[in-house]
Amino acid sequence: MFTKSVLSSVFALLLFSSCVTWANQSETSKQGPIAIALHGGAGTLSPQQFTPELKAQYYAKLSEALEAGYRILQTGADGQDAVVAAIMILENSPLFNAGVGAVYTFDAEHELDASIMHGKTREAGAIAGVKHIKNPILAAQAVMNHSVHVMLSGDGAETFAEQFAIERVDNTHFNTERRLQSLHKAKARIKRQASLNYQHPEKFGTVGVVVLDQLGNLVAGTSTGGMTAKRFGRIGDSPIIGAGTFADNASCAVSATGHGEYFIRYQVASDICKRMTYQNLSLAEAADEVINRVLVDAGGDGGIVAVDAQGNVAMPFNTTGMYRASIDANGVKTVAIFE
Amino acid sequence: MFTKSVLSSVFALLLFSSCVTWANQSETSKQGPIAIALHGGAGTLSPQQFTPELKAQYYAKLSEALEAGYRILQTGADGQDAVVAAIMILENSPLFNAGVGAVYTFDAEHELDASIMHGKTREAGAIAGVKHIKNPILAAQAVMNHSVHVMLSGDGAETFAEQFAIERVDNTHFNTERRLQSLHKAKARIKRQASLNYQHPEKFGTVGVVVLDQLGNLVAGTSTGGMTAKRFGRIGDSPIIGAGTFADNASCAVSATGHGEYFIRYQVASDICKRMTYQNLSLAEAADEVINRVLVDAGGDGGIVAVDAQGNVAMPFNTTGMYRASIDANGVKTVAIFE
Repeated sequence: MFTKSVLSSVFALLLFSSCVTWANQSETSKQGPIAIALHGGAGTLSPQQFTPELKAQYYAKLSEALEAGYRILQTGADGQDAVVAAIMILENSPLFNAGVGAVYTFDAEHELDASIMHGKTREAGAIAGVKHIKNPILAAQAVMNHSVHVMLSGDGAETFAEQFAIERVDNTHFNTERRLQSLHKAKARIKRQASLNYQHPEKFGTVGVVVLDQLGNLVAGTSTGGMTAKRFGRIGDSPIIGAGTFADNASCAVSATGHGEYFIRYQVASDICKRMTYQNLSLAEAADEVINRVLVDAGGDGGIVAVDAQGNVAMPFNTTGMYRASIDANGVKTVAIFE
Repeated sequence: MFTKSVLSSVFALLLFSSCVTWANQSETSKQGPIAIALHGGAGTLSPQQFTPELKAQYYAKLSEALEAGYRILQTGADGQDAVVAAIMILENSPLFNAGVGAVYTFDAEHELDASIMHGKTREAGAIAGVKHIKNPILAAQAVMNHSVHVMLSGDGAETFAEQFAIERVDNTHFNTERRLQSLHKAKARIKRQASLNYQHPEKFGTVGVVVLDQLGNLVAGTSTGGMTAKRFGRIGDSPIIGAGTFADNASCAVSATGHGEYFIRYQVASDICKRMTYQNLSLAEAADEVINRVLVDAGGDGGIVAVDAQGNVAMPFNTTGMYRASIDANGVKTVAIFE
């Protein structure tokens, strides 16, 4: 998986050594600004939910992913390597609803979705409903880099991934007692409501990373276990390019987390970037407008992390909390859960 | 399925009878303008491919679907009923790659996708990869109207549809000799190329309908059998809200047909509407910009049909042909395949 990373690094060195005068925005004059922002989901969170130990665990894991991604950006690697590395750390933690922390479906299995988009080429890759891929973001990356398609689903996506030696696991790999309890609670509520229109209260778990690399590339990636007790092969916004994930070097990179159906209908990720391009808004203005006005008016809960070509970071959310962390172009580091 | 249609008609009558002065844009003063546009796919078409009889068949079926949708709009029904009725006629014809004319997957089956979006509420419904639903647009409509979700896939989508008495068929219902021959040719080419990156030449089959109803609602729907010899659970743009289908009463309704991966990456359907809203472009300008500049620059072949709130129609395509038909707000009817 890092072959491309090595090539990118070599390319970066070659490019910058031949156009030093162009790269005048940093003191070292050999690299453009870099930035990274990530989230581990948004939702109805309250400080009372967190013991000091649990809060420390979240902060530590968010920091670990953030710094791993940042170090890769510092090497001059392509942004996609930083996105994938940081997301894998979050996928491998049971704290977040992605990878090993994935929630259960109605049938007590796990179905995972992921997507990634590269702002330079606007190439994108997404997988939906896979059950045996340890790190779904790797499969999404393989789709982006090695398939003529953008979105693969189900067994077919797993067959595709097999060709790239992406680690497979039994579906029970994703079992955790905490998520199983959530399923039991959700099914009890569904039974009481006896309705197809059960409103899932636990709908905000997702992880996502956006970066600006030294070459000015904006890359976004998102990974999720979906919605507790989801049925009917439901696909949320995380694997939908434009909804949960979007990147365009001309504007911004966005990864979303929230009530996915609203994020699809309102094209949240791409709408933020398009408002920058078409309305000449700043990243902060565009992100605030979509999350705190459009989505709030529509009733859509959630948030996003975003970065623009100057390394500005925006992390607005309209819920009470969002697990998030960032290092902007000035090197300012933030790790937070609440406002 | 027409319960809502009847209710809509009643609602329309009540509304218009109580605000006649508002409805001043038509001579009858009881209805707003209506318009409809539809496509049956775009691609490398040449006049030499068509015998007079075959061309007449296409024209007749496009007209039949167009007029069926238009008549429903004339009753004052909600636009979604016109969209669904017109798409069902195209799905039930073997001439188009949707419903009974669906292409074959690599494994010689049929997997169908469809989506619909209502511009008033921005509610949307989509299904991906169903094998046994005779008219996929009906299942997409059921998702829009009866599910808290936007997108359902595979077996789960079929289970959901069962609850709404939507007609099921054996997968062989979609078998046609013509499409089987296409599969044989495609598999021979894949074998020669021995590549995962086989570029499917037959990638443009889709049907789609957009309407403006008397109440000013813009509705868009799309249905497809996907790509001949598709593998790995590939999902194209047709069931992706924002890519293949988009509707917003404030701007336009769009249904796309073309090389789906480009339409996802460039958010074709929603981008046209957003350029109208954010850049104050006309429908014709926005549609032309996206299809004939952005997509052409990127190498993405295809076209769209679109209608705006005034009943203007745009049907640009960057291929040699697109099966299409429309009746605009002035009652001008068009049926065409080439420029």
